[in-house]
Amino acid sequence: MRIVIFTLLACGMCWGQGGECQPSALNIPGAQHPCVYPDGRATFRLAAPDAQTVQVRIVGQGFDMVKGADGVWTVTTTPLVVGFHYYALVIDGVRVADPASRTFFGSGWENSGIEIPESPDVDYYLPKDVPHGQVSQRWYYSKVTGKWRRCYVYTPPDYDAGKARYPVLYLMHGWGEDETGWHVQGHADFILDNLIAAKKAKPMIIVMDNLNAVKPGEDGTIFTSLGRLPPPRAAAPPAGAGTAAPPARGGGLASFTGATFTEMMLTDLIPMIERTYRVRPGREHRAMAGLSMGGMQTFLTALSNLDRFAYIGGFSGSTGGRGGTFDPKTSNNGVFADAAAFNKKVKVLFLGIGSMEGPGARNFSEQLTQAGIDNVFFESPGTAHEWLTWRRCLNDFAPRLFQ
Amino acid sequence: MRIVIFTLLACGMCWGQGGECQPSALNIPGAQHPCVYPDGRATFRLAAPDAQTVQVRIVGQGFDMVKGADGVWTVTTTPLVVGFHYYALVIDGVRVADPASRTFFGSGWENSGIEIPESPDVDYYLPKDVPHGQVSQRWYYSKVTGKWRRCYVYTPPDYDAGKARYPVLYLMHGWGEDETGWHVQGHADFILDNLIAAKKAKPMIIVMDNLNAVKPGEDGTIFTSLGRLPPPRAAAPPAGAGTAAPPARGGGLASFTGATFTEMMLTDLIPMIERTYRVRPGREHRAMAGLSMGGMQTFLTALSNLDRFAYIGGFSGSTGGRGGTFDPKTSNNGVFADAAAFNKKVKVLFLGIGSMEGPGARNFSEQLTQAGIDNVFFESPGTAHEWLTWRRCLNDFAPRLFQ
Repeated sequence: MRIVIFTLLACGMCWGQGGECQPSALNIPGAQHPCVYPDGRATFRLAAPDAQTVQVRIVGQGFDMVKGADGVWTVTTTPLVVGFHYYALVIDGVRVADPASRTFFGSGWENSGIEIPESPDVDYYLPKDVPHGQVSQRWYYSKVTGKWRRCYVYTPPDYDAGKARYPVLYLMHGWGEDETGWHVQGHADFILDNLIAAKKAKPMIIVMDNLNAVKPGEDGTIFTSLGRLPPPRAAAPPAGAGTAAPPARGGGLASFTGATFTEMMLTDLIPMIERTYRVRPGREHRAMAGLSMGGMQTFLTALSNLDRFAYIGGFSGSTGGRGGTFDPKTSNNGVFADAAAFNKKVKVLFLGIGSMEGPGARNFSEQLTQAGIDNVFFESPGTAHEWLTWRRCLNDFAPRLFQ
Repeated sequence: MRIVIFTLLACGMCWGQGGECQPSALNIPGAQHPCVYPDGRATFRLAAPDAQTVQVRIVGQGFDMVKGADGVWTVTTTPLVVGFHYYALVIDGVRVADPASRTFFGSGWENSGIEIPESPDVDYYLPKDVPHGQVSQRWYYSKVTGKWRRCYVYTPPDYDAGKARYPVLYLMHGWGEDETGWHVQGHADFILDNLIAAKKAKPMIIVMDNLNAVKPGEDGTIFTSLGRLPPPRAAAPPAGAGTAAPPARGGGLASFTGATFTEMMLTDLIPMIERTYRVRPGREHRAMAGLSMGGMQTFLTALSNLDRFAYIGGFSGSTGGRGGTFDPKTSNNGVFADAAAFNKKVKVLFLGIGSMEGPGARNFSEQLTQAGIDNVFFESPGTAHEWLTWRRCLNDFAPRLFQ
């Protein structure tokens, strides 16, 4: 009965506003708000009779909510760009997650999330009636950081039943996110399930790790997690791992420590993956890509280790495209200096960006092309520095791998 | 620098209060509060200069926070019982998650969580230097509900490398929780990793599904998820599955629909698991257990299908122990009427409870014993209707399985 009443209220607000306001699919069970109109506007509601001000913060904008006689605050936004958006409520000056929304780890905390659907015919990142791979949580000990770490590993639909070996894509999240981002916000598993079913992409393993990697004594955290607890005293390190303690899960904000992550990846992560899964060895079967900070990490790691990686992708995070002057002879330690040698080694150099993110990546792509460096430039129309840009990047990048 | 200052403040509050206040391991990265004292008290902080009232709601109590001259609200609780607790802040009358905490799905929304550590020698649910199994996300289509569903599957450490077949424990969450509860809040994977390494439990597969199961047209939701989106229109149902739509993820609050879940489990879940994993078939290799509502579901499902299950566990959720009069001849459709036949069929009937939950489960155990029904009664000392009770139940129950 309560549900019915809520629905009536919701639809009451929809009449004459261009179609019904549909509850966001990222709401908690039973929550009718936030809801999304066909034109991309969203209506938010919060029962807060005693609050003085309530605002919705989303896509860099603030929308002041208005209090009704019933103590319920509401606001309907202007049309929002399609895709997944983190958002927050500001209640009397305090930024909190909307209790009506599921939460998503970004910017170092548990944001609310809302999805503005694309047109009905866009379903490349949705579950369909195709064979599904699985995403597995994998714990491993890092000798470099002296900590336990967690990554998620996508194995393609036929992995369990078969004996085949697969190439591997190492896929990195962005600043303030963690190893959950690519399969929770990004739908990387559904994207690959659909590409593989359509025979557009080769079956592959995808490793989604955490950018945070610091050595004992270094600043910053090495670890964010879904919030599971081992007190530092609790776990003995593996034999030979010295006296390092297990992770204090959820210590300091992500700090960008490219060098330590690269060392950890080459020393701990890749060997663990290759002894744990049926992996095709060698650089021609290994790719690395990432979004934003993860794209910067990808360039740092892969460009300085071309003997390990033949495929490189930067999604909204390519170096050289971020203001700094680019000199093909010296930038990135001169890896681009010999274009012919670079093109022979690197099968795909992919630069992706949202059209609303500015010309940086396009400029970098053009500079590379002028320097004779083969590269793929992909622009996501109408999207900004958000997950829909990166879903589209992955959907375009993955079919280019391991061909 | 900011971190340093926070630390000084934190420790400033600790002096003379029985040891340092340690940041909760479930905090977001970098958050120094909430913090926990060795005696179980916790200090919460929130910067909210414009708020009028702020309260912490935890373990059924409310602790009013006090505003300092700097606009920061703080409160130190009385000693809290050990274990994992959901909690919330109430800011000017609005219940929200603490932005300083990771979130955990319980009571139908994304609660904050805090862990009051047990004594240093208690580590059965923590990651240790032992072989680790993995927890995998598995999507499957239910013909009974007409929806896609997600479960998590724990496979033991030696599963991937070997060819052996394993018995299966179906392990259910409680009201308002979902398929993530047992590995995120419950640490079921670490508990089994440690038991298997110590040779205290047989290697087994654990299937963690979602209690919500309703048929098209029935009330309630069939699905809660981590908030990933397929618009209902997006996915075609599998061939032969009719015209049912994929899940509207996160529709209505969990409603306890035992009959439909049982039908779904027997029709969809168990067959999917047994054709997907290397499973030992037959009732003697199949167990079912659950906490609270999941325990009630376990009794409903297993006691009416003894040809399918030989091991049954109710953690804070055993039928008969919840006030109703118990008659061994007629209760549960008379399954207990022939004690000898029941004892021959059921290898383990396990009743677990926290000592602070009242005498219900103990009374039920005694009634069963008086009726000649073999059963195991396990009481978790000093814990209530919370996850530490259920971790202890699993740690005691799992070694009794498949022997």
